[in-house]
Amino acid sequence: MRPAPDQTVNASSQLLDAPPSVVTAGVELLATSLLDQGVEVRSVDWRPPADGVSVALARIAADPRRAEADRIAVERITTAEPHWVGMTTAAEALGLERGQFLHAGPPITWERASGPMRGALIGAMLLEGLADTPEQADALAARGGIELDSCHHHRTVGPMAGVVSPSMPMFVVENVAHGNRAHATLNEGLGKVLRYGAYGPEVIERLRWMADVLAPAMAAAIADLGTLDLRAMVTQALQMGDELHNRNRAASALFVRAIVPSLFEAGLDPKDAADVVRFVNGNEHFFLNLGMPAAKATTDAARDLPGSGVVVAMARNGTDFGIQLSGTGDRWFTGPAQVPKGLLFGGFTEDDANPDIGDSTIMETSGVGGFAMAAAPAIVGFVGGRASDALRATRSMYGITLAEHPHHRIPILEFRGSPVGIDATRVVRTGVLPAVNTGIAGRIAGTGQVGAGLVTPPAEAFRDAVLALAELAPPLPAG
Amino acid sequence: MRPAPDQTVNASSQLLDAPPSVVTAGVELLATSLLDQGVEVRSVDWRPPADGVSVALARIAADPRRAEADRIAVERITTAEPHWVGMTTAAEALGLERGQFLHAGPPITWERASGPMRGALIGAMLLEGLADTPEQADALAARGGIELDSCHHHRTVGPMAGVVSPSMPMFVVENVAHGNRAHATLNEGLGKVLRYGAYGPEVIERLRWMADVLAPAMAAAIADLGTLDLRAMVTQALQMGDELHNRNRAASALFVRAIVPSLFEAGLDPKDAADVVRFVNGNEHFFLNLGMPAAKATTDAARDLPGSGVVVAMARNGTDFGIQLSGTGDRWFTGPAQVPKGLLFGGFTEDDANPDIGDSTIMETSGVGGFAMAAAPAIVGFVGGRASDALRATRSMYGITLAEHPHHRIPILEFRGSPVGIDATRVVRTGVLPAVNTGIAGRIAGTGQVGAGLVTPPAEAFRDAVLALAELAPPLPAG
Repeated sequence: MRPAPDQTVNASSQLLDAPPSVVTAGVELLATSLLDQGVEVRSVDWRPPADGVSVALARIAADPRRAEADRIAVERITTAEPHWVGMTTAAEALGLERGQFLHAGPPITWERASGPMRGALIGAMLLEGLADTPEQADALAARGGIELDSCHHHRTVGPMAGVVSPSMPMFVVENVAHGNRAHATLNEGLGKVLRYGAYGPEVIERLRWMADVLAPAMAAAIADLGTLDLRAMVTQALQMGDELHNRNRAASALFVRAIVPSLFEAGLDPKDAADVVRFVNGNEHFFLNLGMPAAKATTDAARDLPGSGVVVAMARNGTDFGIQLSGTGDRWFTGPAQVPKGLLFGGFTEDDANPDIGDSTIMETSGVGGFAMAAAPAIVGFVGGRASDALRATRSMYGITLAEHPHHRIPILEFRGSPVGIDATRVVRTGVLPAVNTGIAGRIAGTGQVGAGLVTPPAEAFRDAVLALAELAPPLPAG
Repeated sequence: MRPAPDQTVNASSQLLDAPPSVVTAGVELLATSLLDQGVEVRSVDWRPPADGVSVALARIAADPRRAEADRIAVERITTAEPHWVGMTTAAEALGLERGQFLHAGPPITWERASGPMRGALIGAMLLEGLADTPEQADALAARGGIELDSCHHHRTVGPMAGVVSPSMPMFVVENVAHGNRAHATLNEGLGKVLRYGAYGPEVIERLRWMADVLAPAMAAAIADLGTLDLRAMVTQALQMGDELHNRNRAASALFVRAIVPSLFEAGLDPKDAADVVRFVNGNEHFFLNLGMPAAKATTDAARDLPGSGVVVAMARNGTDFGIQLSGTGDRWFTGPAQVPKGLLFGGFTEDDANPDIGDSTIMETSGVGGFAMAAAPAIVGFVGGRASDALRATRSMYGITLAEHPHHRIPILEFRGSPVGIDATRVVRTGVLPAVNTGIAGRIAGTGQVGAGLVTPPAEAFRDAVLALAELAPPLPAG
């Protein structure tokens, strides 16, 4: 899981070589003058942090382990090399048994689960044959008849509800630089799909086709290819207008063209092969379910570094938004998930929108998604706003991150590396919250997607994480 | 070839609804003040036009046919709907006979042809079995044994040398809005290829494979698809970091994924099909040879409108850079082709570079390529410069064009339409020449590509075109 010492290289130079960047608070004249000189300026609505937090920040700042721990965390994230290496099932790779289900976000009970989370679990129970009707499934779950756990606890990430059941096929992604693996199910496309909480017959039928036809085709492709370098694809897609969270159009097209020669030579039924390619072609988000485990394999390599305030997971279960820091182990720090603001599909209103849901914020955690929106100005047609907002989102993230990614470069910012390595202490000090773009699920189980937009995590999750990190740091000298 | 009257819609609103744009000359304080207000400003190095040109511009301005002719020209260009509709050969579609060859740019003789043009013609003579050795081919051409004509005279465009011989397979593109067609050969990839003047055995062998395997696969795909909407692909690719002249990465990937399901169902030999996809995957410029006839079919619909100064062709033969206006029929106005400035591949110097060559400036003529570089900031890694130069190139082209394309929108410019409809009189009045990005061919026959860069057409071609257009306009009233 962790890199051997000889794999680590000195990454601190990236932290020092970055262009000058100035945060101003209130002094408008200074900001204007700096802008005239071409220096990047972030004007923030700065308030002194609350008292307990000030002490915590001071204690973390004085922690002698911190600089090196943060340096290693960032280095592990920026040197990760996620490759797609194979196909598996949740039963095979994760030991998931009948009646066990994984879900997005921090742990949650059936009782506290939102509509789309319950809908997806109902669908998965139907798929696994644990119930014959949605009502039976609902009753089974309500009487404690199923076992739930977070995807993140099982080297897995899932978009939206993120529900995983034993029979589901999964992509296997390996971080070949650091040896750890991560998994995700295959993307179902848009409309009425399990991950948005839909569970009708067409949803279950599609999931069966995915297991019977799509997954074997993917297995044949990766068996022939051996390995597919996902970091290279992400790097490429960032130069092709994707930000890899809600815009995966280029990456999905690059993925199709990469696997097709192998599909031709695999001896598949030509009709099935054509159907597989049409299915992937019809789904601009297909790559997301490879990008997410790639990001998970990336940030997992930065876990468990005592003293580090680097965020290694951000995830939502539709009720809570949770984060994890490298220096605080497997603890989740949560706050209420917000309802994203953005563009709703025709006929839906904000009342139809569920609070934020999904593990897909692993993209932002790894430095793409909302952090790389400057690379994807066309995304504002999907999530709302103007192209200048996309530039602003990325620029503002440099203020809460520790590095610029050496491979993920953003052409319009003169090939500056995307902001990566979220420092929870910077989030708390500046009050700038991570920029997240996301799909919006319908509030009622079975509705599906109702829109897409922007959202921020709850500030209290970062505050609590910083307080917990401080408690693990050596006490400040008295006086 | 021409639209029926009922197909024309009023496009003049685009000309009037554009955001304000100000050209300043010399008054720096004014420019700065406008910039502060967010108004686009172009500072130009303005000089009063030479005398004969002033009179010509006045005569054109007073031509009562002009406004309507320009309006229709722009409307035909912006309403074009180029579709790929089939495969053919030069013999079949163009009636090209043994010993006849087409080439890029305005007409040229063997004597005046540059190295890469001669090299490509030698290769085509070998391919067609007119000679057994390069020396025999050279001798045959030198004694007038072959017949040459411009691609543009035969509803055809060709990148770089653009040489077309009878047996070569060609894409057929139809402008379904206006009924006219255009053609191009298939892209060979990079390195030692015919279009860059290489003619070694591997070049000829690849051309034979393209005719025997690649073209039939393409024919099977388009037979199944029926038609493929190229305007939609160009529109999409502009949102994915392509500018469609020297960056066709997204368009080529979109093309592959569009044809693959048909390839699966066509009953091709799986090994051949896999080879075809690998060949296209390995060639980021594959789509250029569809984009070019799409652009040709687009601008051809705007030809022969008396009084219009809209440019309908810009093309180079490696010796001359020529342009054609809508209002001056098939006349070419030429000047010396310049050597592009940009990035040369390792080991090559500017002395190795041939002057500008190829019909690919049809992309700029139709409003993409150098005119849409703002959509493709990553291209500066290939042609040189900074991302801000790419933005500047596009912004400056609004000053010499008559419209903003209603479909080709540039996300980073807040989805502003790309500048389209080059007005030769504006070029002459402002002194701003069309921005072109291009591959650079080696000067010596057989070398291949030596780099890529930016180039401008010779100003005298526009001056001469404007003088000729003026001669066709009604005389100015005396006094």
